[in-house]
Amino acid sequence: MAAIVSAGSTKYGKHDDKGAKELFAEAFSEALEGAKNLDPKRDVNAVFIGQMGSEYEYQAHSGSWAADYAGIPRTHAARVESACASGSTAVRVALTGIMSGLYDTVIVGGVEKMRNRGTNEVTLYLGEAGDFHMEIWNGLTFPGLFALMATAYMNRYGAREEDLARVAVKNHKHASMNPKAQYPQEITLEQAMSARPVAWPLKLYDCSPITDGASAIIITKPELAKKYTDTPVYITGFGHSTDYLGVYERDDVTWLEGAKRASDAAYRAANITVGDVDLFEVHDCFTIAELLLYEALGIAGRGEGYRAIREGLTYYDSKIPVNVSGGLKAKGHPVGATGVGQMYEIWLHLTGRAGKRQVKGAEVGVTHNMGGSGASHNVFVIER
Amino acid sequence: MAAIVSAGSTKYGKHDDKGAKELFAEAFSEALEGAKNLDPKRDVNAVFIGQMGSEYEYQAHSGSWAADYAGIPRTHAARVESACASGSTAVRVALTGIMSGLYDTVIVGGVEKMRNRGTNEVTLYLGEAGDFHMEIWNGLTFPGLFALMATAYMNRYGAREEDLARVAVKNHKHASMNPKAQYPQEITLEQAMSARPVAWPLKLYDCSPITDGASAIIITKPELAKKYTDTPVYITGFGHSTDYLGVYERDDVTWLEGAKRASDAAYRAANITVGDVDLFEVHDCFTIAELLLYEALGIAGRGEGYRAIREGLTYYDSKIPVNVSGGLKAKGHPVGATGVGQMYEIWLHLTGRAGKRQVKGAEVGVTHNMGGSGASHNVFVIER
Repeated sequence: MAAIVSAGSTKYGKHDDKGAKELFAEAFSEALEGAKNLDPKRDVNAVFIGQMGSEYEYQAHSGSWAADYAGIPRTHAARVESACASGSTAVRVALTGIMSGLYDTVIVGGVEKMRNRGTNEVTLYLGEAGDFHMEIWNGLTFPGLFALMATAYMNRYGAREEDLARVAVKNHKHASMNPKAQYPQEITLEQAMSARPVAWPLKLYDCSPITDGASAIIITKPELAKKYTDTPVYITGFGHSTDYLGVYERDDVTWLEGAKRASDAAYRAANITVGDVDLFEVHDCFTIAELLLYEALGIAGRGEGYRAIREGLTYYDSKIPVNVSGGLKAKGHPVGATGVGQMYEIWLHLTGRAGKRQVKGAEVGVTHNMGGSGASHNVFVIER
Repeated sequence: MAAIVSAGSTKYGKHDDKGAKELFAEAFSEALEGAKNLDPKRDVNAVFIGQMGSEYEYQAHSGSWAADYAGIPRTHAARVESACASGSTAVRVALTGIMSGLYDTVIVGGVEKMRNRGTNEVTLYLGEAGDFHMEIWNGLTFPGLFALMATAYMNRYGAREEDLARVAVKNHKHASMNPKAQYPQEITLEQAMSARPVAWPLKLYDCSPITDGASAIIITKPELAKKYTDTPVYITGFGHSTDYLGVYERDDVTWLEGAKRASDAAYRAANITVGDVDLFEVHDCFTIAELLLYEALGIAGRGEGYRAIREGLTYYDSKIPVNVSGGLKAKGHPVGATGVGQMYEIWLHLTGRAGKRQVKGAEVGVTHNMGGSGASHNVFVIER
């Protein structure tokens, strides 16, 4: 469908000295340096950027500024928004642009500048990702929504608070090997279990942080890939599904139907099965989400996600590595950047650039990026 | 490239009893009623929605809610944002989706709910469409930006305040024949000239209003069009260009280079010249913009746009009808809806549904939708 020529990312964390524009420019510059013989003015036909909140800096119209900051002020561009899945949605739109024959080569960025606002304000803005009027306005925050999923899941399947905490311990372990992670410190199960509650059973380490950051990839038609890089990787499948915006409208709060549909479609398009995948980056906005995604993506059977983490199967050096970057949990979650950053991570592994956390011999990677409390899902299969 | 099967629109104006979701549902319902044998669950593959501001109602993730309100909660969807060009950008993204072979039939909506906020707040939010940090933060509002363009234009070419006012008089005359217009009253030149200044030389009637509204179109592959309607119209060309976000970065503030590039590309793709066009809907956010667009789109020579309105050439029953709907000026400007609403208007004329303001025998229509102070432009050629 398309090839990834190169990728780049800022460190995720707190960037007092940079706004969204400068963050994007930094990520894009790294991606551009990693490509050979690529002149944006000559070779790039469009720029798409995923960003959830223009509110944070009172700056919308991000397609136009991103094009300018990429050095091609007069081109095709747009900002794409699907809440926390904005980054992967921008990739999806760019991909259909290439598949349409309209574009050869496209820059896709994802960005979010959040740390310049207070926690309460960010919590309010993030509430726009759910059904604001039926859920958030009535007092449910995002931690609250995922806490409801967690309690229902624990009650139905016998998972325990420790199982949630184990996801955090794993992802912090992974982040400790990622120089671009926001929280690279390792944590113990005891630390995670004794942290202060945010919305029970979710405690501090069960929640992804508030993050500034940007990621970027450059994609092109498969037949052009070798012109711009010696180490192309290929997007061989993608799947997408929306779902009801409000959790209250869904049949089962312990099951992410949209993620199931998106991953089924992606595997089918790439002609692979889940067993062929060497590593996953999935949307662990809260630890419970990672467990639900084990199940929706077929990594574990229904109701058995918590057993996979209990048995340690999803560590980077185990059977099915998940969130080797540190995940949203510990790498950080600059909302609009996250879906693009997941592809950056897979690109690092498939091209042997992932350093200490490298998944040995990785040939097939899968990303899953989720919007809101599960109302949109994009899954990509990426192969060497 | 694609066919428009049907279209719908709310009245533009003040809708205290409806939010963005209900407005979209109303516009989409009209479009659906106008199609035959179309079952969204069976036939529609994706929903794209243009919306600039999630701020107005604290509700982002609009692709997902729009899909739900269209009756297909599990589909492909996204919100697309390019400031005031968001609606046409959603059409563009939908069109590339169809051209890619991924989708047969797509719903495109545009919506904005603005009247629930105060004028100062709306002015601030609209400032996000320009270069917020270099322009708006330093005291330039959108009326201020266009006032700078107007004074430079008047100084260079000898246009007068009356020429701006004439655009308003024409568009109010047109709106008086449009039952969906926000301000359908006719005005006199004297009224326009004696209205209170907003940012000199722009007075009240030189500025488009703050509007609630939604519009929707259903587009499909050309070969499927007759299945869903007896009166299909065809998108035969489109063009797009971004430009510098800040007016201060551009070489000439009296010239909209992005609009020139976008219209050239659209005419070329459709294999037409400007003389073939029977009516235009262009982005008259301020009266000066309509004059600049006469020039960029080739309706008048450079520096001669004001002569076209002085000579009355752009009335609905004259040589080159422009903004027969009433334009942003008098039909209203619900930001994200505007680009889709322009296509609704052209669809009405090409299918003979435009009532008293019908442009007789219209076969070719062109829409031009602009983002910000000219940093993105989409032009579509639509033919019977």
